[in-house]
Amino acid sequence: MTDLLTQPGAVAAKYPTEPATDDHHVVIVGGGFGGLYAAQALGRSPVQVTLIDRRNFHLFQPLLYQVATGGLSPGDIASPLRAVLKQQANTKVLLGDVVDIDPDEQRVILKRGQTVPYDSLIVATGGTHHYFGNDHWEAMAPSIKTIEDALEVRRRIFLAYEAAEKEPDLDKRAALLTFLVVGGGPTGVELAGALADLAFGTLEKDFRNIDTFETKIILVEGMDRVLPPFPEALSANAAESLAKLGVEVRTKTLVTSIEGDLITLKRGDTEEVIRTKTVLWAAGVKASAMGKIVAERTGAECDRGGRVMVEPDFSIANHPNIFVVGDLAHYAHQNEGRPLPGVAPVAMQGGKYVAKLIQHRVADKPMPKFEYKDSGSLAVVGRNAAVVDLNWIQFTGFPAWMIWLVVHIFYLIEFDNKLVVMTQWLWSYTTRNQGARLITGKDVDKVEDTMRGEIRLQK
Amino acid sequence: MTDLLTQPGAVAAKYPTEPATDDHHVVIVGGGFGGLYAAQALGRSPVQVTLIDRRNFHLFQPLLYQVATGGLSPGDIASPLRAVLKQQANTKVLLGDVVDIDPDEQRVILKRGQTVPYDSLIVATGGTHHYFGNDHWEAMAPSIKTIEDALEVRRRIFLAYEAAEKEPDLDKRAALLTFLVVGGGPTGVELAGALADLAFGTLEKDFRNIDTFETKIILVEGMDRVLPPFPEALSANAAESLAKLGVEVRTKTLVTSIEGDLITLKRGDTEEVIRTKTVLWAAGVKASAMGKIVAERTGAECDRGGRVMVEPDFSIANHPNIFVVGDLAHYAHQNEGRPLPGVAPVAMQGGKYVAKLIQHRVADKPMPKFEYKDSGSLAVVGRNAAVVDLNWIQFTGFPAWMIWLVVHIFYLIEFDNKLVVMTQWLWSYTTRNQGARLITGKDVDKVEDTMRGEIRLQK
Repeated sequence: MTDLLTQPGAVAAKYPTEPATDDHHVVIVGGGFGGLYAAQALGRSPVQVTLIDRRNFHLFQPLLYQVATGGLSPGDIASPLRAVLKQQANTKVLLGDVVDIDPDEQRVILKRGQTVPYDSLIVATGGTHHYFGNDHWEAMAPSIKTIEDALEVRRRIFLAYEAAEKEPDLDKRAALLTFLVVGGGPTGVELAGALADLAFGTLEKDFRNIDTFETKIILVEGMDRVLPPFPEALSANAAESLAKLGVEVRTKTLVTSIEGDLITLKRGDTEEVIRTKTVLWAAGVKASAMGKIVAERTGAECDRGGRVMVEPDFSIANHPNIFVVGDLAHYAHQNEGRPLPGVAPVAMQGGKYVAKLIQHRVADKPMPKFEYKDSGSLAVVGRNAAVVDLNWIQFTGFPAWMIWLVVHIFYLIEFDNKLVVMTQWLWSYTTRNQGARLITGKDVDKVEDTMRGEIRLQK
Repeated sequence: MTDLLTQPGAVAAKYPTEPATDDHHVVIVGGGFGGLYAAQALGRSPVQVTLIDRRNFHLFQPLLYQVATGGLSPGDIASPLRAVLKQQANTKVLLGDVVDIDPDEQRVILKRGQTVPYDSLIVATGGTHHYFGNDHWEAMAPSIKTIEDALEVRRRIFLAYEAAEKEPDLDKRAALLTFLVVGGGPTGVELAGALADLAFGTLEKDFRNIDTFETKIILVEGMDRVLPPFPEALSANAAESLAKLGVEVRTKTLVTSIEGDLITLKRGDTEEVIRTKTVLWAAGVKASAMGKIVAERTGAECDRGGRVMVEPDFSIANHPNIFVVGDLAHYAHQNEGRPLPGVAPVAMQGGKYVAKLIQHRVADKPMPKFEYKDSGSLAVVGRNAAVVDLNWIQFTGFPAWMIWLVVHIFYLIEFDNKLVVMTQWLWSYTTRNQGARLITGKDVDKVEDTMRGEIRLQK
């Protein structure tokens, strides 16, 4: 492990691992909702902030499924971290991959051995997809967690239609026009709805040999209803909306095997084999790898999903200056011990709280306890329909969709001026002319391999 | 070679290579300006049209440099071909790779051996980049012809800044902040100008360790002035605007070697070695591979750049039903034998003319001669400056930039509603907050390799 500050030839004072002043140095790992809200909340404090992320942008993940289905471009839902934070003179952004932390020496270690010292550390690296012990399914059934994932899924969806248009064999064509979405949570429901919008709306007049109404969209959920965390009435309403859109919803159903284009579903004792070229995985989320590292180095406990158990102030037991917020944290000090859900508002509020706590600590002031303000949940179900649960009142259908839209626009434009983006999207959404339906990628020369129904997998 | 129409198991009537009626069947290879204008002009004719392209979208290439520099997203300047042509009931779009043509049997051959019969054939596959015998330079000095090229260049530009921000060695940092653009034609000038806008505008406040004003942008041109096809006064004005923007313009200068990050420039007898991590190639265009194939199969001649010599009606000698339009054609029947330039208006007018010729031929009517209407040339030189030559009047500076803008918006929105896109772009352009500055790609885990100044090349 080399320490850059003492390395010969290094212009130490200029190297970004060293804070510019002797101020309290807060290192934040991860520029998602938790990390970015923390960084912004520290903007005018007498502390130095270094935000480290592997990517140079914050991603508005709630709309990533729209990139996967050709409604939005990556640039529409991503904001360069440097641009978001450029007015904060006390804040540095560092493009880097944190691979370890060293609580004794109070520093984080980057992939190539460089170290960044901290006084307070906020870890907010979020979650990743989870195949429940079937990691080999990933190639056939990609998840949508990154921009690259979304572009790969977009590529597969539109290649499936192109291949179907050219496919003379009716069975193969049916397999190409079958889309299986695994997981009936908000992401799965939103994806299935967007696929239905595509098949039975946007693409309607695009093809000459196939009828896009032949498309079969199957949404599979292991529990007894879609959107399990929502009230039952809203789950029922979402299922009904999906059915109206043309999505086949199968509850109490599990995927038991994926072999090539044959997917085995199991419901009770009944097995069924579906033939499809496109399986999209929206079933599981687990903590990112940093969870295990933080636990090992600090002696913290993790839950089954790899999330780090945190104290009431998001710190780690016996390490009051190391905090974990967002999807990586297991916060069980409210709701009778049930952990807070892995959603954006929890990450935002956690990030803000920890920022404030550090400010108070530096100023030697006491900090009140954290209290999560649950303003409700919402999920969109295709064009013009959604379900919204504000805890004291519930909405479905178009009014819920309007609420969903306003909330998303509000948060999307917070960091960055994306208002025109959203106007444009609404316009193309309304006119059913979503323009980002591009098949792109490195293997463009292989496009002919879609002939005869063989879709090349890029991963 | 298999013929799908007679292949066992094939549902022949449904296969897209067979036209739906006995109407005259026009096959168009390539969905660029030439091919797409031809397809649209044939929309209401009593003919069947099949447009074949390797990509599922039309690309508005004149703005591709904006994608490479983070100003626009790919979806902003690409329109799905199916969407553009969906109202034309007589037109099929086929995603495919034409590898050969067979003039005797009147059919084109796709990569996997399938054939598509034609009565008239329009070849419009355009041009590709040209390294003048130094194809090994491509990895170090990418061109910008495709969306994938532009995203790779975007990745390199922004990784160079990220690496510079982390680089303690001053020489390495200088190499990271040096950008060399090879070629002083419109593309090179536009790229250099956009890089200057980035370095000395957009990115100004983004970094903490580097001053983006340290950026060195060098534009190299072999001739004695930039924009050689323009009138001399406009070339001089463009050079002046570039200098004002902070671009070093070196005319009469050639690149003689590229070895790693050392690039040798030669001016007269003087050699100079520049150290840079980012070289962008805007120097040469040659005809795509179809040119050679068409020439071989028809006995047509090609020029040195591989362009097919065409008759006054864009047909090939002795093959009146095979046409070549756009950048692939060498049309020398105007301007005292000088070929028409490889620009979008020539492709559009050629495509439209051939479409009309085929319509007249089918209706047994005579067709007047083709005459190219040259409405002038224009090139943008960074923010708020351009040069415009309308033949009867010339503009420079801001008025020229306004004309450039209006012309580009006009053509960009022709196929597709991109007006909101352009509004958004103008907004972020004016506010210097171009949001598409994302580093994306397959190798995101390798982002740490930018540490210590080593940029991983993705290709």
